[in-house]
Formats: sequence, C-alpha cells, structure tokens
Amino acid sequence: MADNKIPYKIYLTEDEIPKQWYNVRADMKNKPAPLLNPATLQPLTAEELSAVFCEELVQQELDETTAYIDIPEEIREYYKSYRPSPTIRAYGLEKALGTPAKIYYKFEGNNTSGSHKLNSAIAQAYYAKKQGLKGVTTETGAGQWGTALSMACAHFGLDCKVFMVKVSYEQKPFRREVMRTYGADVTPSPSMTTEIGRKILEEYPGTTGSLGCAISEAVEVATHNEGYRYVLGSVLSQVLLHQSVIGLEAKTALEKYGVKPDIVIGCAGGGSNLGGLISPFMGEKLRGENDYRIIAVEPASCPSFTRGVYAYDFCDTGMVCPLAKMYTLGHGFIPSANHAGGLRFHGMSSILSQLYADGLMEAISVEQTAVFEAAEQFARVEGILPAPESSHAIRAAIDEALKCKETGEEKTILFGLTGTGYFDMVAYEKFNDREMNDYIPTDEDLQKGFAGIPRFPGNMD
Amino acid sequence: MADNKIPYKIYLTEDEIPKQWYNVRADMKNKPAPLLNPATLQPLTAEELSAVFCEELVQQELDETTAYIDIPEEIREYYKSYRPSPTIRAYGLEKALGTPAKIYYKFEGNNTSGSHKLNSAIAQAYYAKKQGLKGVTTETGAGQWGTALSMACAHFGLDCKVFMVKVSYEQKPFRREVMRTYGADVTPSPSMTTEIGRKILEEYPGTTGSLGCAISEAVEVATHNEGYRYVLGSVLSQVLLHQSVIGLEAKTALEKYGVKPDIVIGCAGGGSNLGGLISPFMGEKLRGENDYRIIAVEPASCPSFTRGVYAYDFCDTGMVCPLAKMYTLGHGFIPSANHAGGLRFHGMSSILSQLYADGLMEAISVEQTAVFEAAEQFARVEGILPAPESSHAIRAAIDEALKCKETGEEKTILFGLTGTGYFDMVAYEKFNDREMNDYIPTDEDLQKGFAGIPRFPGNMD
Repeated sequence: MADNKIPYKIYLTEDEIPKQWYNVRADMKNKPAPLLNPATLQPLTAEELSAVFCEELVQQELDETTAYIDIPEEIREYYKSYRPSPTIRAYGLEKALGTPAKIYYKFEGNNTSGSHKLNSAIAQAYYAKKQGLKGVTTETGAGQWGTALSMACAHFGLDCKVFMVKVSYEQKPFRREVMRTYGADVTPSPSMTTEIGRKILEEYPGTTGSLGCAISEAVEVATHNEGYRYVLGSVLSQVLLHQSVIGLEAKTALEKYGVKPDIVIGCAGGGSNLGGLISPFMGEKLRGENDYRIIAVEPASCPSFTRGVYAYDFCDTGMVCPLAKMYTLGHGFIPSANHAGGLRFHGMSSILSQLYADGLMEAISVEQTAVFEAAEQFARVEGILPAPESSHAIRAAIDEALKCKETGEEKTILFGLTGTGYFDMVAYEKFNDREMNDYIPTDEDLQKGFAGIPRFPGNMD
Repeated sequence: MADNKIPYKIYLTEDEIPKQWYNVRADMKNKPAPLLNPATLQPLTAEELSAVFCEELVQQELDETTAYIDIPEEIREYYKSYRPSPTIRAYGLEKALGTPAKIYYKFEGNNTSGSHKLNSAIAQAYYAKKQGLKGVTTETGAGQWGTALSMACAHFGLDCKVFMVKVSYEQKPFRREVMRTYGADVTPSPSMTTEIGRKILEEYPGTTGSLGCAISEAVEVATHNEGYRYVLGSVLSQVLLHQSVIGLEAKTALEKYGVKPDIVIGCAGGGSNLGGLISPFMGEKLRGENDYRIIAVEPASCPSFTRGVYAYDFCDTGMVCPLAKMYTLGHGFIPSANHAGGLRFHGMSSILSQLYADGLMEAISVEQTAVFEAAEQFARVEGILPAPESSHAIRAAIDEALKCKETGEEKTILFGLTGTGYFDMVAYEKFNDREMNDYIPTDEDLQKGFAGIPRFPGNMD
C-alpha cells in the first residue's frame, strides 16, 4: 500500500526544530493594517500595548520587517518535549478515496493540549516570565487555548488565570479539569471577581457568559493587578509568528523527500493555525520563488472570509479590545447555537485578511454535516480522531482529492490537522445520532452583524 | 537541561518496528499453567478454544515453545500508522525530582485509542478477518479496549459488537461515542439482546451491569452467531505476545544510545502492558544474559499480586470463562466503588503469575491519592496527562528515583506509560477537588473473595 520511498510519518530530528520563526509580514508588499486605539482611531503605540501585553510580544506584534526572529533556547527546549510534530502521508485516505492525489497532513494534536495552540502559549509564557511577571490572564471557550496556556505556565512557574465561558465551565468540565491539573485558576465567566463581571451579572442575572465577556474580565484582571499581563491565542500577528513553526517543519519534512505541495489547506477561525501553516509557502509565493494554491476553509455558519466585509472592527464583542482591520461579520455576530465545529470567531487575523484581499489565497466555506462526514471517514482510515476544527481542512482536502480522481491529476495536497477531537465527543454524538443540522446565516443575519461595525471616515462609510 | 547525546524522544524508523513478536514462554523453565475446562478440569484443547476464539489466536495461546512469531505484513502496515511509539527521556521529571537517576518511559498513548490496547486489537482483528469471519464481540468497561477494537475492526471492515457495562455506557458516554464513530455497535450490558442478559435483568431489574456480565453476553453472541468470535484485551498469553512490541521497541531504542535499564516498571491490571513491556528484558534474564529488577505496580485497592492467592480461578465473575491459574483475589472480588484508577481485574495473566511465583519479578501496591499526586507532577513537568493506570508506574518510578537521590546512585529506570487520561477527567476532578480517598481492602474483604475460588484437588485445598 505504502509508497516505499515515503514513510507514513515523517519525523524531523530535534535539531531540525526551527531555530527561528518566520515573519511573513516582512515579505508582504501590502502590510497588514495596524491596530487602532478605538478612542483616538490612531495606531496603537508600543507603550499603549505594553499596558496589556508583555513588552517583547508587543515588539513582535509591531515588527513588520524582520523576516526571521530567533526562537529563544528555553522555548526550543520546551518544543522538544512535543515537537517536531509528524508530517503524515495519508496513505489510508488516498486508498479509501481511490485518488491519484498525494495527501499529506501536518499533525499538531499529539500533545496534551490537543492542538497547535501550545506553540504560541509556551512562547507567550516565556516572555512573561522573562519580563519578571507573576502571571498571565486569558479567556477560553471550550478550553483548547486555556489548556495550552496552563501547560505553558506550569512549565515556567507562572500564575495562570483563565476566565472560562460559564456555559462551557459547567457543561464541558473536562478541559476545565485538565487546566486545573496544570495548576491554573479557572473562573466561570461572568464572575463576581471583576468589576465588569459584576456589572454584567447585575444586568443579565441568568447569563451563561460569552467569549467577549470573558475577554473583558481577563483584560481587567491583567491591567488592575501588578505583575500580570493578558495573552491571546489567535488573531494577533505575534501568534501567527509563533505558529510559523508548523509550516516551517512541514516544509522541511516534505523537502527531505523532494515533495512540493500544489495545494496548502488550513481551517480558519482566528487564523492562528492557517497563518502558521502557510507562512513559509506564502513567503515563497510573495517573493516569486514558487507558486502554491492556498485555501482557507471556514464554517458556513461563521463565514468571515467568504461573506464578511473587510473593515476595522473590535476583536471582541465587549468592545474593550483594539480595532483590527480584518474580514469580519461584525463583533456582535454569534454563530447559530447548533454550530458544533469551533472556528466561531467573528473576524480574521489582519495578516491573513490582507493576503486574501490581495488575492494571494482563496477561501471556501463548508457545512458542518459535511465536515463531520469527512471527520468520520478520516478517523476510520487514518486512525486519528480529528478535532471538528481540523475537519474543515479534511473536508476541503478530500474534495480536492476527489477532483483529482475525476481529472486524473496527481496533485500533492498538504493540509493542517490542528488537533484531536477527544474533548468534542458531544458534537460527535450529535453526528452519530444523525441529529446534526446545518445552518447558514441569511443575508439578513449578516446585515445585523455588519450594522455593529464602527463607522468612521474610511471605514464602512 | 538535556543530556546532549540523548534526545527527549527516541523514535525508531518504520523499518525498525519489530518484524516478530517475542513469546517469553519459550524461555520460561516453568511454563504457565494451562487454561482448564471448568467442567472437566482438563486443559482446554485447541478445538474447544476454537469455538470461542479465532483459530490462529488459539495456536498462539497454546504455543509455549516458539520464541519468535512473525508479525503479518498487514499488521505491521497498520502499526506504521501509529508506531514506533516514542521512548522518552524524562528530563523534566528528573530535574523536578533532583535525582541522579535517569528515567525513560515508553509512551503508548499517542494513538486515538489512547493506550497500548491497539497493539493486540489490530492483531486479533486481522486473524478474525483472515479466518473469513464477519465480526467479533467483546466487552468493555470504561472503553479503552473497546475503542481499540473498534478502530481495528474499522480498518479491516469487520463488524464489531461491544457490550459496554451499563453504568459506563450512561455515565461515561465519550469513549462510547468514539467507538460509534469507528462504526462499532455498542450495547449497554446487561441487555435484552442475549439470553443471559435477559436472565440477569429479570433477576436484578435495576442493575447497572458488571464486566463479568458483559463478558457473558459477548461470549454468548460470539458462540450463537455464525461467523463471529470473541476477543479479549488482556490476561491471555496471546495478548502478551502481541504487546511484546512495546518492550522490543523500547529495548531497541535504548540500545541505540547504549542505555541498559537497571529497573523496568509497569502497571499491572490483567497484565497486558506489563507483560509486553518486560518480555524482552525478562527473556534475557531467563536466559541468564542480563539481570534487571522488574517491578509490577498494582492498586492497593485491587492487590492481586501482593495480597492474592496463586490458584486456579475463573477469569470472569460470571463463571462462563475457563479457569486460569493466576494470582487472584477471587472472581467475585470487586474493588471499592471509590477506586478511580483502573486496573480493576481480580486476577493476573498466567505468564506473569508464574514469573512472579518463581521470584523473577517483584510487585508492589500503591494507593490512589499517591498515584494521582504522581500523575499531576508528571503532567506538569513532562507535558503529558497520563492515564490513571499508567500513573501507578509513574508513582513507582518517582519513588525509585527519589531513593537514588538519597543514595546518590545513577540508576536507569524504564517504565511503561500505557496511555493518556483524556477520558478520565472525572477521576482527576475528584483529585483536584481533594475529594479522593484511599481504600485498602481488609483481610476480611479478601477472605470473602477467596471463598469464591473453586475448590478441587490441588486448588485451594
């Protein structure tokens, strides 16, 4: 069955873990638009950002010119405990599809956080420690990012305060317990421990919380407590920088076997995985060295690329965060409650938004029953139970491979398998019971979201 | 931090996956006692066993002389999808303990079944397929074995009928959904689908089931349906044979770096992991080529090695299975309900029982709060959230490493990390909430269990 020359799993050695992150902004002709202070509509300065974020992370956030940034030895040392992650040839899937396409995936789920999030969590925790901070705060929904950050903080002996959306805290207790096992302080949000939490609870006594509210609480604690800063697991340019290890490793692994992908596919929520996976390929494309088809895959129920507008908007529903220019559905947009597949963020990384606006990548949206069908097929033939998020990329990869079957083309497809679905079995159960539905927002739904986007000269006017 | 010569994770290449399983019985002077037919008290013949088990597996069960048995190419091919599993140097744990000991662990949790069980599941499914069977039946408690078997059956297109203890089916639905995602037919036991199930439900209308009852139902379905056989995930000698890949890979990996363990530690329930891990080391010990301290670690609440009797007993509480000579607490023994750490089987593999009786290995028991303390420490410094079962071995490894700290000895310790704890967060939650207790059975409790062991000349008389 297997192509003799290429193993199922290509493992690099620990020495081959990248020594530098790649900053794709350095090769972008059109730089991503800067974050704005919502009060002044002026680009945020390093000083302003440093009240919320660690200093070195602020530098990385603002650095648009340095192509390669050294990965500190302490971070590389931690990477060695779970990296390099394998680049896997999907022999089982190829056979099941009967396609002449050659399919590879970069698997980021083989660590306890269950996803690629750890790549940036350990970096952010390191810089917080280096700055002499006591701890960091963050928000989490189902808990993927919170788990990664808890692990990173345990490693560096940092206090980790996680505000977890109350409905997840109560109904999805397992990732909460993983975080607690790693010593994190997990508070259901909204809580009585913050001013904004108390205010929200007073206004909406029975609320089960939202990511926007949890962000507000986390930012409040970070800015009101000596020695704390706030950290975020996606969207930001610093996060995409850290996640470039995904793409760098995948590219090196494939090059060892003389393989060059024709198509690179990643799922897209806030953009952390997609941005990390495509970075080095996009770099070559930007520099005119190589061409790749690059495809972002998003849920049809939260279609920021494919149906959003490109405008400045708040990163959070609570409007405490800066304005970012991005493809957005409006910061008030919330995907239908029946959406089980993650990737719920209303906006998209500014870097990826600019690349998409410049026509350097494509975007498609897929419906969740089709996503879970792909997940089930993949699990059975590849032996890995994928995260619903990752399964968006699987769906697109399968569809491209089936096109190859029709045309007879032997295209090489690389996609990002961001994580495992062990904590998503409620969604799988729904699918197994054939109780999963699709929901695509109507144009009217979208207009409501767009209506909340701030209006100012040059934005939505 | 890291010893420059030895990486964190030693990965063998796919070519280095063992081509043969090692059958430790071939090197045992005192062979394990044969399985007996409980009606005749005579050793079970191949013919009798073939009514329940696949033919080739019966041959393996009875083969006490062939030291190396070829692994069929189809099984090796599947092994390549998740093996070789890494042999990991516990640099983080060593540093945290401040021990001069060098600690290694063989990690079997990096596949979707979450444990080593897949090593035997894929073998058993292969032989069932080869025999032209339609499917296999089995029982599962929390679902580790059932998940592994579901994955294996999905690969070979076999029907997989799993009887899952009702209380787990209802209270631990997540592994159930993993099994269903892999296409298994999962029935809560006792069920109305079997004669024995109906009988039990009539007698005990509100029962939430037991492993013994689930075994009885699985065996009934296997023997009453054309084209089905029953498969089991531990205890049997064939299972230890398949699991020898664990020890063979670990030994090869260490030898690459000139490392020879002084102590080999494994957790012990039915013995599948322990037997597999220690096999090649025990082989050298039996042949007088090398000496190793070999330590079985069991829960204090289910102490078959350390407090059981060595006698013939039923493998199941329902008394439908053969008699096996083993260290046993009596087939009616059930660990205290507060026991959360797995390894609940009342008996122990006949191979391991004989080796222990011959003084070739040691056994210790550990209490569950101490086990979860070890699990928490390990998770934080090694980044892997361990299964409670595996954490018994972690506890013992830490204790041995701390002894080295006292004495200054630089011993090399190898232990088996059988799996991950992602589906055990209820137990972790109990521990995190400081609501976990220890319970050690009294001598009186044990006497009750021993009273159920069959009496016949030479057994318990």
